[in-house]
Amino acid sequence: MFAEILREIVDGTAGGIGAVLMGYDGIAIEQYFKPCDGVDLQMVAVEYSNVVKEIKHTVDILNTGAMEEVAIKTERFYVIIRSLTEEYFIALTLQRDGNFGKGRYLLLRDAQKLVAALS
Amino acid sequence: MFAEILREIVDGTAGGIGAVLMGYDGIAIEQYFKPCDGVDLQMVAVEYSNVVKEIKHTVDILNTGAMEEVAIKTERFYVIIRSLTEEYFIALTLQRDGNFGKGRYLLLRDAQKLVAALS
Repeated sequence: MFAEILREIVDGTAGGIGAVLMGYDGIAIEQYFKPCDGVDLQMVAVEYSNVVKEIKHTVDILNTGAMEEVAIKTERFYVIIRSLTEEYFIALTLQRDGNFGKGRYLLLRDAQKLVAALS
Repeated sequence: MFAEILREIVDGTAGGIGAVLMGYDGIAIEQYFKPCDGVDLQMVAVEYSNVVKEIKHTVDILNTGAMEEVAIKTERFYVIIRSLTEEYFIALTLQRDGNFGKGRYLLLRDAQKLVAALS
């Protein structure tokens, strides 16, 4: 059922490339990726989990309230990360010309469904 | 002149709290902060520089194109980070009910001015 939700998010977002449901320990529960030239998207997800872990740690010690969302824009991609629980987050990668707002909305819309399925 | 640009960005963004022009080595060139209860905003900026350094490193090794922008949403704040040069970035912190879009726009608008002043 995780796979189904991930697929819906990626296919429902123009320019969507892949999504991964992952623990802050860097271990993926489920993922759905379309093929993409020149970039190992699985590696992208794993590497970003280190970044997210670092952000979460920073947010925790700074007393700025729990981390909810991180958006990273590079020359080629958008990566949108949404925190789900203390242990898990979801990351969506899309093309730079993709529909960032739609991807963000779908992550938000399905977050509760994923949280419920995780517990 | 850096101080003037930072002040304009913070005061021009509803909910703007502070901005810092900083090196990826964590050393600030200039900053402008309004007082904010319960949070050491200078510490926020320094801590986020570690995060940004980590993201930059990740982006570099992943071949996803240069990092342009990072947006972090927590329960209390937004932090918007814009890469300026290989060495420097600017970070804007605003209240959660602040005008995220305006802050993002002002960072983008003044990025070239800051890059020119940095070189």
